[in-house]
Order: sequence, then C-alpha cells, then structure tokens
Amino acid sequence: MLILSVCQNPPLSDVDTCRKSKEYNLGRCDSIRMTKLSDMGEKEAVRRILAEIAEKEGSNAIGPGDDAAAVDMGFVYLVATTDLIAQSTHVLPGMADWQIGWTVAAVNFSDVAAMGAKPIGLLVSMGLPKDMPSERLDEIIRGILDCCECAGGEMLGGDTKESPELSLSGTALGTVAKKGILLRKGAKKGDLLAVTGSLGLAAAGYHSIKKGLGDKKAEKALLEPKPRVKEGMALSSSGVVTSCMDISDGLASSIYTLAEASGVSFDLDYEAIPVENDVIKVAGKAGVDPKELVLYYGGDYQLLFTLKPKGLGLLSSLLGNSFTVIGEVKAAGENTLIEGGRKKMLENRGYEHFRRG
Amino acid sequence: MLILSVCQNPPLSDVDTCRKSKEYNLGRCDSIRMTKLSDMGEKEAVRRILAEIAEKEGSNAIGPGDDAAAVDMGFVYLVATTDLIAQSTHVLPGMADWQIGWTVAAVNFSDVAAMGAKPIGLLVSMGLPKDMPSERLDEIIRGILDCCECAGGEMLGGDTKESPELSLSGTALGTVAKKGILLRKGAKKGDLLAVTGSLGLAAAGYHSIKKGLGDKKAEKALLEPKPRVKEGMALSSSGVVTSCMDISDGLASSIYTLAEASGVSFDLDYEAIPVENDVIKVAGKAGVDPKELVLYYGGDYQLLFTLKPKGLGLLSSLLGNSFTVIGEVKAAGENTLIEGGRKKMLENRGYEHFRRG
Repeated sequence: MLILSVCQNPPLSDVDTCRKSKEYNLGRCDSIRMTKLSDMGEKEAVRRILAEIAEKEGSNAIGPGDDAAAVDMGFVYLVATTDLIAQSTHVLPGMADWQIGWTVAAVNFSDVAAMGAKPIGLLVSMGLPKDMPSERLDEIIRGILDCCECAGGEMLGGDTKESPELSLSGTALGTVAKKGILLRKGAKKGDLLAVTGSLGLAAAGYHSIKKGLGDKKAEKALLEPKPRVKEGMALSSSGVVTSCMDISDGLASSIYTLAEASGVSFDLDYEAIPVENDVIKVAGKAGVDPKELVLYYGGDYQLLFTLKPKGLGLLSSLLGNSFTVIGEVKAAGENTLIEGGRKKMLENRGYEHFRRG
Repeated sequence: MLILSVCQNPPLSDVDTCRKSKEYNLGRCDSIRMTKLSDMGEKEAVRRILAEIAEKEGSNAIGPGDDAAAVDMGFVYLVATTDLIAQSTHVLPGMADWQIGWTVAAVNFSDVAAMGAKPIGLLVSMGLPKDMPSERLDEIIRGILDCCECAGGEMLGGDTKESPELSLSGTALGTVAKKGILLRKGAKKGDLLAVTGSLGLAAAGYHSIKKGLGDKKAEKALLEPKPRVKEGMALSSSGVVTSCMDISDGLASSIYTLAEASGVSFDLDYEAIPVENDVIKVAGKAGVDPKELVLYYGGDYQLLFTLKPKGLGLLSSLLGNSFTVIGEVKAAGENTLIEGGRKKMLENRGYEHFRRG
C-alpha cells in the first residue's frame, strides 16, 4: 500500500458534465508510450499513481507515499490501506489456504500498524477460480477471520468474483489519534533508528521451503506474518517516535524509503540487528550469505522506526525488549552500513514486482 | 459487495496464542468437501462468508448482507465497501482503459450511494500483467480519478502487483449520519417501491456492442455506469426511505434481495418502469425481449428503494423526476409482476458469477 491524502468534503459534480470535461484531456501520455510495466518496476508504477494524485489534489495530502491513507474524521484519523496477493506471485507451493487468508489480512493490518493505528477491520475482494473446491474458500475465510481477531479488528465485508487465478485484495481500516499518527517522514538528524523483533527469519523460511530444509520456525515466519499492531500502537502513544514504516520489501529498501521521505540518511550498524540462530543455520545449509537474508529480503513485516534519543527509556518501558536500536539518523547523504568498524554504502535493493529477471 | 457488521474496539489478542487456539478448529467442512464454486454460485459463496462472520461476531452486525459495511464512528457511520473487476469476466472487448478505471470506481461508489452515504474516497488494488504498456495504467488511473472527482470522493491510495490478468479491486469509503443510513431491510407493507433513473439501458448497451448496433447512448450506459451519489444522499436526508440497494445484478434479483432482507414481498408494475426508447430499439434489432433487458440484466446501477407513501411529495421536491414509483410492498409471500392487468410470479434470476453455462 502506498498513498495517502485527504481533504474532507470535496464538492459533488454532475457526472455527465465532469465526464465531458475530461474527454479532452486524454492524450498527454505520448512520451511514455510503449513503456511496459516490466521495464518500470512496481515503485515506478506507484510513483506514477502518486504523481497523478498530487496533480489532482493539491495540498491536502499528508504524507504521500505512506503505508496507508489517513482521513480526517474530526477527532481521529481514519487510516485505510489496501494490499493484494495473487496465486502466481505471492502464494508459495505448499502454502495452506488458511495461511493464504491469514496473510492477506496480516499484510494489510501491518500497514495499519505502521501508522500507529488501532485496527477497525478488514474488507476482502476475492477473485476465485471457477473450479476451486469450496472447502478452500472456507479455509481462506477462516484464516482471514483468525488474523482479524488477533489483530483486534473484524472482517467487515467482502466481494467474490470469478477469476482465472486466486487473488485476494484486502483493505484494512483503523483509527489513530491525530497527534499519534506515524508517518514515513519526520526523522531528524540525531534520532535513533530501531526495529521491532528480528530480521531475516521470513527470508530463511523461503530458503528452507525452497531447499526442503524443514526449519519450521522460519517457514512459519514467512507463511504466517504477524502484523505488529500492539507495537505500532505503543510507538504511537509514546510520543517519541518520529517516523515509521513496516518492512515488507527488505530492511535496506525500507531505509532508503525512510531516508527519502524524511530528507535524511542513516548509519546502519549491521552487528546491532537482531538475527535469530535459525537465519544463520538456514543460510549455511542453503549456501547463501545471511546478510542477504537480513538486509535485502522482505516478509518479516517488522516495524522500522526512528525515535528521539531521550525517548529510549520510555519506549523500553512500553515495549520491553521487543525492539532494538540498529543505527542513527544523519543529515541527507549516503546511507551507510557499518560492519566490523568499517563503513560502506548500503545497497539500495530489495524485492520488487514487475521487474524482469 | 456484501457484508456489514461492526462492534468498536474489539480486544487485542496475542497473535501466537490466538493462532494456536484456532488450530483445533479446522476440520468442520467435511460435509461440503468437493463442492466447487461453479456448482455453488456467487450468492452461495457470499452466504458462506456471511455465515462465518455471523458465527464470529454475534449481535454487533447491523444489516448483514448490505451493500456496504457500516462502522460506528461516534457521530456518523463510516461506510466501507469493496468490489472487484477482472479482465476476463468484467471487461468487454473494446472497453477503453479509461472506462475500466471509471467502472471500478463507479461500482464501489454505487454501494456507498446505496447506503445514503457521502463518499470520502477510494482505494484500489491493481493486479497488472507484466507486459501491459504503462500508458494503459495511466488511462486506468485517469478513469479512476475522474470518477472519484465526479462522485465527490478522492483517490486515497492503492497497491500494484503483478498478475496474469488485469484485475482491479476497489474499496470505497463514505460517511452517513447515523439516522440516515439506508439498509436493505426496513421495507414495510404499504410502502411504495421506487427506482432512480431508467432501467435496461446498460443491457441494451451489451447487445448493441455484441451485435455491432452502434447505439452509443446504450453502450455508454454500460461502459460508464454512474454512481447515484446525489440521489442516495437525498434519499438518506429525506427521512422517508425505508430500505435501499443498488441494482447491480438486475431488477428482479434485487427485488428478491430486498424482499428477503425486509421479510416482505413486492408487487412490481411492469408498465410503470421507466424504459428509454433505445432499449426498445436495440431489443428489436437484437431480437431479444425488452422485458429481459429491463428485469433480468444488471449494469444500470440505479437505486431501488422503498418509501413511506406520505413521503412521496417530499421526495419529489428533493429529487424531481429522477425517480419513479414502480410497485408496492406487500406482506411476506410471492413477488409478483403485474402486466396488462394480469399478475404473475416474478422470476428470481439475474446475472451471477461462478454458475456454469
């Protein structure tokens, strides 16, 4: 999920008049003709949507590019986010239907959590193959309902349509006190960089499944991601968190996103990052560098955030040891990785859809 | 879109604990094993989801099966709805990308309108084929934005993912005064049955395209459906409307839905239904019965509603001639069609996904 805006109460227009006025405005894409999405990448597709919105909406947007949209409801922001999973691109072989349902709920509640919001509930549009046994639908729904319950939200509604492949599109809603909303922008030089939980376990799960290594803990981390709802709400209420997002596409990629949104850079201390033994073990057996799993894979859905240094004690009292400081915020510049006392540039890569190869 | 519930502030649970407690509860679908969605139909798929939700949520649901979910936000209901369109099942040959974008926004805002709500905005998850030219994406987004503007909402956000075929899942949000919410239940014996606009034009558009008849007005009605937002808001504010839904799958099917929700039946006066000349013309050329187009096809997205008879004058002053009384509400029983002074049973059929043949 990507975008955020809102003004309240835009005027109603007459549909016919409005439609007509737009008909003269449809030819201005000549310069990008024939670019395919596979050349462009998902981020560029998203950037393009943001550009269209910014062009339309003017100055009412708060935090374009954030994990969720925020709508001013008077006393609170209504937070709304949408995320889609499709059989061919998101469902791993052997993934249970319950896990598919759980996941579409979890990735959406994760975006709500990243804004510091308390979930209200979830809507799910389901594209379902005609020949799918109905017991699969039941299991998917069960997974959705279980995740809703665990995130403190409800299944609010849904839609089912026939589709050549299974696709589930979720929309999660939540509310957050206006002062407590967490955005990707707001990090300031001198702030600390921190992360909830540990990193790399979902990536280890991917390799465990791929190579049949049988690391159940890692596989579960991948197949049943947890939305960090309680953590997000605590970060929001603390008043010391200056920016936040969830790590869906990898730590390095998320650091670049936060840096760009806030106009800062980061020093990331590799040795400070919490990594479970299973990550090291699986990486060893799979013959991959554990650093790859920790930095450049997504799937952990931990929250990455910055905080004022003097707020560290307060946050520890709220969250205990469920978060770790892993770096600090610098002035705008190069994002660096510190390892063994040596600094080098942090590579800007992660998982992205549409890209070839 | 189908379901509605809400309690506010359900408790947060620990994800791990919760997951575990559910693992013992996964085997109760044996009796429906091997039923396929194609045997079941979309309505049954929806009923199944409703049953799961009802089982979980207890008595907090208001209006299960409604066009949108309604969340109690203190002073107002937040209305939320989701609807999906997919290339192979919803996109007609020759449909412009702008129209595809327009349509996904329109069908969602139509559900918001059916609840009497004022749109806030729209989120859209897009499953996009890798080789889709980016200019198509731009046109789709333009269509979405234009419909948002015309419905008085905003494009709040979205998500893009790779998918073997184009699929767009929209979620529309709106607000409505608590007293003004329109539900499918509430019709009472003696109320009048009414509809906005005219019926059958979108169906005529379908036949015009299929047979190359070139009826542009009808084709536009099909390809650029209008969400009846202003009408829905007026129905809500009038205080005389007792039930409402949008007609997406055909008039007859919608009458059966309203009848079931309210525990009543309807006498439908066929000759009172407003039908444009284009419907008669296209039906003639295409060799189909115009009554088929008026009663058993969807796509017009008009609002079907019931009102207290004494409210007719007030509603006329609010809506002018943009609605028509087409029948009346009877006690529970058979829904009947009156034509040429003769009464017969109204057939319960309309367009439905998943069904074979």
